[in-house]
Amino acid sequence: MFNFTFHNPTKIVFGKGTISELGNLVPPGCKVLMTYGGGSIKRNGVYDQVMEALGACSVTEFGGVEPNPRYETLMKAVEQARAGEVDFLLAVGGGSVLDGTKFIAAAVPYRGGDPWDMVLDHALVTAAVPMGAVLTLPATGSEMNGTAVISHETLQDKRPLKSLLIYPQFSILDPETTYSLPERQVANGIVDTFVHVTEQYLTYDVNAPLQDRQAEAILSTLVEEAPKVKANPNTYDVRANLMWCSTQALNGLIVCGVPSDFATHLIGHELTVFFGLDHGQTLAILHPAVLQHQREHKAQKLIQYAQRVWGVRGLGDEETIDAAIAKTDEFFRSVGVPTKLSDYGIELAACKPIVERFKERGTKMGEHKNIGYREVEEILALCAG
Amino acid sequence: MFNFTFHNPTKIVFGKGTISELGNLVPPGCKVLMTYGGGSIKRNGVYDQVMEALGACSVTEFGGVEPNPRYETLMKAVEQARAGEVDFLLAVGGGSVLDGTKFIAAAVPYRGGDPWDMVLDHALVTAAVPMGAVLTLPATGSEMNGTAVISHETLQDKRPLKSLLIYPQFSILDPETTYSLPERQVANGIVDTFVHVTEQYLTYDVNAPLQDRQAEAILSTLVEEAPKVKANPNTYDVRANLMWCSTQALNGLIVCGVPSDFATHLIGHELTVFFGLDHGQTLAILHPAVLQHQREHKAQKLIQYAQRVWGVRGLGDEETIDAAIAKTDEFFRSVGVPTKLSDYGIELAACKPIVERFKERGTKMGEHKNIGYREVEEILALCAG
Repeated sequence: MFNFTFHNPTKIVFGKGTISELGNLVPPGCKVLMTYGGGSIKRNGVYDQVMEALGACSVTEFGGVEPNPRYETLMKAVEQARAGEVDFLLAVGGGSVLDGTKFIAAAVPYRGGDPWDMVLDHALVTAAVPMGAVLTLPATGSEMNGTAVISHETLQDKRPLKSLLIYPQFSILDPETTYSLPERQVANGIVDTFVHVTEQYLTYDVNAPLQDRQAEAILSTLVEEAPKVKANPNTYDVRANLMWCSTQALNGLIVCGVPSDFATHLIGHELTVFFGLDHGQTLAILHPAVLQHQREHKAQKLIQYAQRVWGVRGLGDEETIDAAIAKTDEFFRSVGVPTKLSDYGIELAACKPIVERFKERGTKMGEHKNIGYREVEEILALCAG
Repeated sequence: MFNFTFHNPTKIVFGKGTISELGNLVPPGCKVLMTYGGGSIKRNGVYDQVMEALGACSVTEFGGVEPNPRYETLMKAVEQARAGEVDFLLAVGGGSVLDGTKFIAAAVPYRGGDPWDMVLDHALVTAAVPMGAVLTLPATGSEMNGTAVISHETLQDKRPLKSLLIYPQFSILDPETTYSLPERQVANGIVDTFVHVTEQYLTYDVNAPLQDRQAEAILSTLVEEAPKVKANPNTYDVRANLMWCSTQALNGLIVCGVPSDFATHLIGHELTVFFGLDHGQTLAILHPAVLQHQREHKAQKLIQYAQRVWGVRGLGDEETIDAAIAKTDEFFRSVGVPTKLSDYGIELAACKPIVERFKERGTKMGEHKNIGYREVEEILALCAG
């Protein structure tokens, strides 16, 4: 096991009716800026619940944070927060709203120039407006971590911002708020959660059996619950289980002391930038291909995964690995997310600029830092369909 | 799943050589009171490592915190801390030193009378001196929770103190510090960890499959690692895995949204008070008996536990439950902790005062609050041997 530091100060308030606790969670006397997305929270009653719970606070609003939240949009919120001397941010929505709000939190007190610089150099984050969240879409894990993924439209760039200072002080997770989600978002969220786990688990063995089993715990639960949410979308426990899985998948726990490989996410971000695919869709396309491409390096863990999560028995090593990858691909399709570029009408040739970008940047990805632009090209070829 | 709140602000610094990071973890300029136990840290080099790392701090010491730390001893440390105007406590040792230090932390600023009152009424804890820890004995989970179990010699009492204010700010876990532990303490620690998990897992099903699997992850890892530490005590990864298991067992994670049953611990405390047994020994004696006594109420979970942790297959329900309990008992004995009162030379008749005590207090324990003094008597009878 590697040495590690684990520190996650976010308070999680989980369950039915918990939005009503907001009044006790937001520090008294704060000027709150509430951020949200396209307005679904006004249709599903969440907005009203939040406003009622915040009765005693001074609240202003910033709506319109888009999926893959954009620097350009967020900078408007930064101006509004500065002008209004806001001292608490409340994000109400899914991972994009939370991520965007984390950027706003760090950008408001930043006086060193363009806040995008902080995305390029995380050490520049030295202060942040405190924030809390009401999560309405389980997927990114943003509700309990210090990471935000931000897109810069002008630069055609999408990158993570990371800091201990942008962990939410609290996150409210009421599974009932997820009943009204479109099926596509639920499916994308399951894929995102699943891939977060495998990216921290399917690497190489460092003798960390507890972390392995904690990862498998999430995967097995997703495999079990995913068909249920399709069959009966409004079952509380199923929604609750999916929501808690997504938080546990990326709160720093399962990565304690083990290597990780976020190549799927990093290449996926480019598919979103260039083709506007949903984040979950990019992962469903890329992840089986990354596993296939790296099967030799990941062999031992792929076999363990096949056996423990998918119950594969009695096959030789190579066939077991084939089964692991096939089951993963099949799972993504079963929840409703296609896994080939051709399913989205994307030609392999159109991906050339992605390869170019990795070439320019010289990025090396994967737990062995062996995925460069040539390997990206090979992986994309495996995604063609 | 039940509603829940999860909030654990302790920073864990885990791994080889991590004591050297103390200088960055203790707030600069603090007057530190370092607490420890019987002095083993002076023999195994931990004391020297700590002192070297704290080079720049003003440090005083309080040694002699005993196993099952006593109010009477701790009050001397409270006086010393008050007199020295200490503003940071550093506990170096096992769960007893950590628990004792948590009590000191809360007692120092307490001006409402006798600090024991806080043990009887946790709401009286409204402030605490900040503390950190260097853990040298994996067992209690105290390094990442807000609980301290304190014994009052004069009153012949042993009770938990709980507060959000007594979470360590940080805990350093260096598995190498555990190499020099006596075998008996290692064995007790494994039993303590195992029982912490089962007390939060072997209750009744509330449709929380992730929490179930997270609990099983710890149990399966303990079952796997325990024989290894006996065979090769100085294997780093084995020590690391056991240490991380014990932290994860009682840091609030696996109890999220599920019922718990701490009857084994609560009755066990009395066996320590009356007969001076090690904490782990009391659990090894009582736990199989509690499971046996409550087998009807815990049937579903006992069957799941037998199948998933012990690989029991092909038996009827009752036989599967028999196997679950027998395997548990066997496991405790296999690590070196006997499971019957008679193994420790204790006659059942001598336990009468324990039953009386539960009668006086009117305590009802277990996830169904169905374990009162009569049931305690029946459980103790099952422990006789």
